Amino acid sequence: MSTTKTEKYQPLTEISAIKLVKKLGLFDATEALTAREIGDGNLNLVFHIINDQTNKSIIVKQALPYAKVVGESWPLSLNRATIESNALKQFGAFTPELVPAVYYHDETLAVTVMEDLSHLTISRAGLIQGESYPLLSQHIGSFLGHIAFKTSDFALKPQDKKEEVVKYSNPDLCNITEDLVFTDPFFDIDTNEFEKALRPDVEELWNDGDVKLQAAKLKYKFSTNAQTLIHGDLHTGSIFASSQETKVIDPEFAFYGPFGFDLGQFVANLFLNALSRETNREPLFAHITNTWNVFKDTFTALWHSENTEPFAKDERLLHEILTQTWQDAVGYAGCEIIRRTIGLAHVADLDEISSEERKINAKRTALKIGRYLLLHQQDVSPNEFEHLLR
Amino acid sequence: MSTTKTEKYQPLTEISAIKLVKKLGLFDATEALTAREIGDGNLNLVFHIINDQTNKSIIVKQALPYAKVVGESWPLSLNRATIESNALKQFGAFTPELVPAVYYHDETLAVTVMEDLSHLTISRAGLIQGESYPLLSQHIGSFLGHIAFKTSDFALKPQDKKEEVVKYSNPDLCNITEDLVFTDPFFDIDTNEFEKALRPDVEELWNDGDVKLQAAKLKYKFSTNAQTLIHGDLHTGSIFASSQETKVIDPEFAFYGPFGFDLGQFVANLFLNALSRETNREPLFAHITNTWNVFKDTFTALWHSENTEPFAKDERLLHEILTQTWQDAVGYAGCEIIRRTIGLAHVADLDEISSEERKINAKRTALKIGRYLLLHQQDVSPNEFEHLLR
Repeated sequence: MSTTKTEKYQPLTEISAIKLVKKLGLFDATEALTAREIGDGNLNLVFHIINDQTNKSIIVKQALPYAKVVGESWPLSLNRATIESNALKQFGAFTPELVPAVYYHDETLAVTVMEDLSHLTISRAGLIQGESYPLLSQHIGSFLGHIAFKTSDFALKPQDKKEEVVKYSNPDLCNITEDLVFTDPFFDIDTNEFEKALRPDVEELWNDGDVKLQAAKLKYKFSTNAQTLIHGDLHTGSIFASSQETKVIDPEFAFYGPFGFDLGQFVANLFLNALSRETNREPLFAHITNTWNVFKDTFTALWHSENTEPFAKDERLLHEILTQTWQDAVGYAGCEIIRRTIGLAHVADLDEISSEERKINAKRTALKIGRYLLLHQQDVSPNEFEHLLR
Repeated sequence: MSTTKTEKYQPLTEISAIKLVKKLGLFDATEALTAREIGDGNLNLVFHIINDQTNKSIIVKQALPYAKVVGESWPLSLNRATIESNALKQFGAFTPELVPAVYYHDETLAVTVMEDLSHLTISRAGLIQGESYPLLSQHIGSFLGHIAFKTSDFALKPQDKKEEVVKYSNPDLCNITEDLVFTDPFFDIDTNEFEKALRPDVEELWNDGDVKLQAAKLKYKFSTNAQTLIHGDLHTGSIFASSQETKVIDPEFAFYGPFGFDLGQFVANLFLNALSRETNREPLFAHITNTWNVFKDTFTALWHSENTEPFAKDERLLHEILTQTWQDAVGYAGCEIIRRTIGLAHVADLDEISSEERKINAKRTALKIGRYLLLHQQDVSPNEFEHLLR
């Protein structure tokens, strides 16, 4: 992969995107290519470029200098494209089969050229259609276990780890999470979005000082606790899947944060899908349990084989870190479930429930369980999620 | 204050140091100045420059590109001079009366020109002479309370705080602390230095898995927990004092770390001085209690008047942070007491006890109490230190 710096940022067009991939030698100058912009236009341009005759295809992704959400627009650092590209390369060094290959990055243009994964489905969409992706939790547990250990103080030289923390410093995108996940849903703030029927439930949440105290502590841990390189936005919409493959995409929120954050967000989104279903929920709950088990086993194996910390011979240190990681994950899952129900960015799993009554009931349950998780971080085991919903 | 960049690093001499302060306009070109290098030569050159007729004086401090300790020498980032200068300016913005004024900094030369404080005494030396510096804890408690709050997530904008974390990233010097404070003293490693008579006590420590687990957790928190800008080396040798004045110097170890670290180191060094005395220990124990009380009151007042965190209206969040801060301080004090007794860098308070028997006894007590603090972080109150020694 190569990286260059262009003089000045400008948005790509379908024509200039084609020009770029030819210039990079990824296609011959004479090939007839079709480019289609397939992004949602809120944060990024995404060009799908294909030679219709050979079927060879590629993705060109460019960050926009602003974020648009529900009509609002605010400026956003282009540096997130470099962070995303660096994170994909870093993840790829440890689990190459679980991320797209990155071919090129340009810092000034905020452009990354990468593997086209359109033979796969975004796992949220597939899960909503009733797919269960039997390997999903095996893959994500392994992905998270590898990244968590390999980028931590237990694997890296102390100085190298601190340099990574600086490299992945991502203030703008962290602040989006701090506001939209940890703060706004817990206060009566304009960005929140929820059905009128939910108002009593939401007000109950806003008046629940105990729940808010836990949210505050999880937010503070998110902002201060540089344990490991995290994806930062690992919901089921950031994962391409098929029955055989799993690919993690879009780590533009990546930074050094707590071990439990990605785990909690992923588990929460599996849970929200289960909640949206009327039948066949078991595979989702099995995924939740298995994600944790595979994470724990992967992390533990690496701890024993690759640890550079002299104190790490004491198994109790590992045990305490794993226990805290799961407890944090439960708390982060609670925050994610709540914000996906009443915050600015919802999930289709709940919003697309066709019966209005069932939708409201599901959201009411989501709020209840989100609050429960925040209050019971110490005593919710991975297989408890299934019982909570009964 | 002005900052410039020179072309190339080279060590100053007494002549070039005088040239520099004249060029900066801090003295007239025609003044007769005397320069004397007063540093210990292990980490820095320190020039004291004075006009003997007017008595006007100034300090020129230059970092050396290596560290020398007990004959060993290893390369060390010059960037620490910039960190020190930035930290002094930052501290000075909040508590100008408690740090030297900084007049000039040159990044490439790693030179800082600052206020001469030689009318004061290094507080360790004064305490060893039996001074008690009645305002010391009032000043240091206020210093730590201001810095801790003002540079935290509760005072700064989220993005600004993350930029500060990057600005003060200090991998080389953090690693010295990680090794010399948190690791080496707990293992049979060459850098340790202790009297033969202490060997059984030291081996007992090395075999104490419970104590080592606590040290491991405090080290991990030090390496990952970016709560606030800390001094990083706040022992009594980093503080100039008189009966009226207190000035904190030498923050070259500054970085974003846990609230409790500086507190713990300072308290530990007060304790070590008390331990070295045969009489008049009370002022030291009063200082320990008062440091915490002033810290807590300062931090609490700022929390109420300047907090920008919406969740901070819940007093329980403040209470939990203060409780954790003190518990961490107790643990960090334990590590500091142990490493100052058997690690690479001792304190004169203990080493200069003239009676060999009394010295060994004091060190044995230090080890015992250091271990006790590590194991009882949750239940040692500030005034407990006095009882521990009885």
